[in-house]
Amino acid sequence: MTVKIILAGPRGKMGSEAIKMIQQEKNFDLIACIDRKNKDVLPEFPVERVPVYYDAAKCFAEVDADIYVDLTIPEVGFPYTKLALEHKLQAVVGTSGFSEQQIKELTSIANRQKTGCIIAPNFALGAVLMMLFSKMAATYFPDVEIIEKHHDNKVDAPSGTATKTVEMIQQTRESKTQGHPDEYEMIEGARGANDDGIRIHSMRLPGLVAHQEVVFGSKSQLLTIQHDSFHRESFMEGLKLAIEEVQSLETLVYGLENVMDLS
Amino acid sequence: MTVKIILAGPRGKMGSEAIKMIQQEKNFDLIACIDRKNKDVLPEFPVERVPVYYDAAKCFAEVDADIYVDLTIPEVGFPYTKLALEHKLQAVVGTSGFSEQQIKELTSIANRQKTGCIIAPNFALGAVLMMLFSKMAATYFPDVEIIEKHHDNKVDAPSGTATKTVEMIQQTRESKTQGHPDEYEMIEGARGANDDGIRIHSMRLPGLVAHQEVVFGSKSQLLTIQHDSFHRESFMEGLKLAIEEVQSLETLVYGLENVMDLS
Amino acid sequence: MTVKIILAGPRGKMGSEAIKMIQQEKNFDLIACIDRKNKDVLPEFPVERVPVYYDAAKCFAEVDADIYVDLTIPEVGFPYTKLALEHKLQAVVGTSGFSEQQIKELTSIANRQKTGCIIAPNFALGAVLMMLFSKMAATYFPDVEIIEKHHDNKVDAPSGTATKTVEMIQQTRESKTQGHPDEYEMIEGARGANDDGIRIHSMRLPGLVAHQEVVFGSKSQLLTIQHDSFHRESFMEGLKLAIEEVQSLETLVYGLENVMDLS
Amino acid sequence: MTVKIILAGPRGKMGSEAIKMIQQEKNFDLIACIDRKNKDVLPEFPVERVPVYYDAAKCFAEVDADIYVDLTIPEVGFPYTKLALEHKLQAVVGTSGFSEQQIKELTSIANRQKTGCIIAPNFALGAVLMMLFSKMAATYFPDVEIIEKHHDNKVDAPSGTATKTVEMIQQTRESKTQGHPDEYEMIEGARGANDDGIRIHSMRLPGLVAHQEVVFGSKSQLLTIQHDSFHRESFMEGLKLAIEEVQSLETLVYGLENVMDLS
Repeated sequence: MTVKIILAGPRGKMGSEAIKMIQQEKNFDLIACIDRKNKDVLPEFPVERVPVYYDAAKCFAEVDADIYVDLTIPEVGFPYTKLALEHKLQAVVGTSGFSEQQIKELTSIANRQKTGCIIAPNFALGAVLMMLFSKMAATYFPDVEIIEKHHDNKVDAPSGTATKTVEMIQQTRESKTQGHPDEYEMIEGARGANDDGIRIHSMRLPGLVAHQEVVFGSKSQLLTIQHDSFHRESFMEGLKLAIEEVQSLETLVYGLENVMDLS
Repeated sequence: MTVKIILAGPRGKMGSEAIKMIQQEKNFDLIACIDRKNKDVLPEFPVERVPVYYDAAKCFAEVDADIYVDLTIPEVGFPYTKLALEHKLQAVVGTSGFSEQQIKELTSIANRQKTGCIIAPNFALGAVLMMLFSKMAATYFPDVEIIEKHHDNKVDAPSGTATKTVEMIQQTRESKTQGHPDEYEMIEGARGANDDGIRIHSMRLPGLVAHQEVVFGSKSQLLTIQHDSFHRESFMEGLKLAIEEVQSLETLVYGLENVMDLS
Repeated sequence: MTVKIILAGPRGKMGSEAIKMIQQEKNFDLIACIDRKNKDVLPEFPVERVPVYYDAAKCFAEVDADIYVDLTIPEVGFPYTKLALEHKLQAVVGTSGFSEQQIKELTSIANRQKTGCIIAPNFALGAVLMMLFSKMAATYFPDVEIIEKHHDNKVDAPSGTATKTVEMIQQTRESKTQGHPDEYEMIEGARGANDDGIRIHSMRLPGLVAHQEVVFGSKSQLLTIQHDSFHRESFMEGLKLAIEEVQSLETLVYGLENVMDLS
Repeated sequence: MTVKIILAGPRGKMGSEAIKMIQQEKNFDLIACIDRKNKDVLPEFPVERVPVYYDAAKCFAEVDADIYVDLTIPEVGFPYTKLALEHKLQAVVGTSGFSEQQIKELTSIANRQKTGCIIAPNFALGAVLMMLFSKMAATYFPDVEIIEKHHDNKVDAPSGTATKTVEMIQQTRESKTQGHPDEYEMIEGARGANDDGIRIHSMRLPGLVAHQEVVFGSKSQLLTIQHDSFHRESFMEGLKLAIEEVQSLETLVYGLENVMDLS
């Protein structure tokens, strides 16, 4: 059976990859787009014969879809997703930018409407697993450091994935001071960023894309979990999974790991 | 409260490390050893004032212990463990060498006696987690290869950990052919060992100790799980955990991952 | 001063990258292309206002250039390069496909004409250095294995770079048998391809691009030289270097490492 | 022919490894030790039948040796080495602690006496090559970062090898600012230590021994040179090499790379 999809944010980097993926999947059918900056179907738009709506409400009212996919920015995605759930449209939202209050509000609408919703801060399945495994490992390996490596066009350090990984690890890691109690830096910054005792090191070089290693150390052994992403195409497997899994939900799930089969 | 321990196999590589660990742990008390080759306490034995029994039955009858730790070989370990469980002694056994039939038999004794028993094919927590994570990842990353690296004194290839990892992966991985359908080797062996479609590569060099990388590949992303073990001291954290966890068991558990807290 | 360039093979993968690079470099000026399949300037051709010749001889006769860059196939590149050298055009040729006899012939023309020529089997500077460093290291680290990792569309194994690396290593490595004398494979192929005693392991997975690790092992230490190439754009730095270096040559040089400043 | 060796510093970590190595080598013969804290041959000393001198001058006067090996501390090593060279004893000195002035003075004595002397700040051949290759690569790869990883008993960061590597790289690398001009740290230290624009990241974890990766990045490619040292035994190959090479010298050479055959 074909899944009829409305996509918001079709011109963005993620959105344009998503269009490619949806068109390649036999069971997925892109039936409309929502684009704030387009009032109508534009001739140069890569998706032929798919209507592009300027007005989300109008789109949800007129188009008979199964799933709403939101790849916009948080300010736009929040009202759109609310509207979609009110229309009993199952929703997949790719964002890490919603506040706790917003997630609470969406959860209550999803529950009331018995309509599935998945909010995914990260669609790269490998990154999701890296963070989940790191959380699991930290119970037994409380000594851990993170190296994240990105191209030198990235201005901020450390990466969002690195700080998110620390948050995940904190859920299981017994709080402790790492390193030698008397350690000192001959050159400032050598020991990296100190995030709750966990050191994060940010490498920035041309040639790098997006990589992270989480290194756990214990007596005479190391456990390393590494993710390399070479292109945003790597997010598409996760988006596909979310579209498939949201169909059997009647509530809101935050984080892709919570709909994955991890037996 | 102190845990009173009987150790079998005190002269082996694992056994001698275990003695060091037990003596360092405040809550652990080594109260007897069993050693097939010693008839009595020998003066040169490193463990002073700990009686060494030649006869396991005599040891279990005379010594009031909490836990029996078996670090012998399978042929010796099986009858000893049976005897320990019959004496209602909780048992921790480090071996990958028991047959299914033997495990069944020990399970039925453990259940009848309501006595905990942990059989651990691998005490390195990092290796146990590497295998568990590999099993979990393979659901979503069915394309996977393994590189295992050992010192050049190792005669067999691939390593037991590598083939065990493949077994774990098979539990979740959808069967598939990997690589290009027309791939060919210009030099025989280039593509490694083919274990159910999963390629294993065995590197042997001086300087290496014991290392394994499990590499999962998908569109534009890689997930790598790596374990490095530099010394058999790395097994002691796992042995300690098993000694702690077996105390709350009334049955037999096979594999350390099944007593670990993996939330 | 601007370097005037004729490029043969403009529609190929390397050729189209080269056009981008030449157009971005201030000092480089693309003044003509040679393309066997085009008889004239074609309107759809990406390079506007650059004449495309079908006939190489005609091109060399009519166009006043400094450098001839050949990114065709060996069968085409050999006669074209001969012709270019006869016209006293300095030549940069990207191929690993010329025979020893052909290289000898081109060398003698280059010497006679006092015209520089660089033949580069590999333009990726990182790969060239990896091979050179491997050759240098092997004097002191005769125990070495290679892991090369490519996408799963590659049909042949091991890669040309891996076998070329072995050739380089053989120039300095004292012949020896590696591994344990009694080593055996439980599953055939585990120990990889045996190329003069050096083991090569070929990994093929989706997500991989083109990677190679050369691992040298010695007592309690490892030295690893690794190259990762994510796109053929990585060849352009080397091509640029060759175009710059060929201008001060009056002979033929084979291999980019031989014009590099390696102090 | 057997090389007769006097060793100073026999009780140190390096010294005791050196004794093992010298005794294993057929061509090497340990004929005396110099030890400031021993006045005479001590019964508990591991080297049986080798006289241990308290007084270096007396040792050089009485003992007919070929080579003097200094594995003491700089304050002791400098006067001892001077004395050795005055006695026309070829000297191998393992230290990074001599001042420029001291090296100059030793050089002039060596030249006057026509007696070889090798001063090696690092005997690990793999580390020496890593630094040399890094210097060579930096001509073409000016964007570089260093990750050095050590056990968590190390108090200082970055490591001496890391800062030495930067010094080597500076000899060839065109000075440049790395990273994005607008880059900023969300958590201080994320981008590591800034050593002349080159970032150094120091990881400290139990389980680690002594490791360093030098990562060079360029458009769509990476070149990584990595050294792993698991035990100070790894220094012995380099010491052996120095003992062999010093015999054909009539001057002082600083740095093992300068006596290595790097064709």
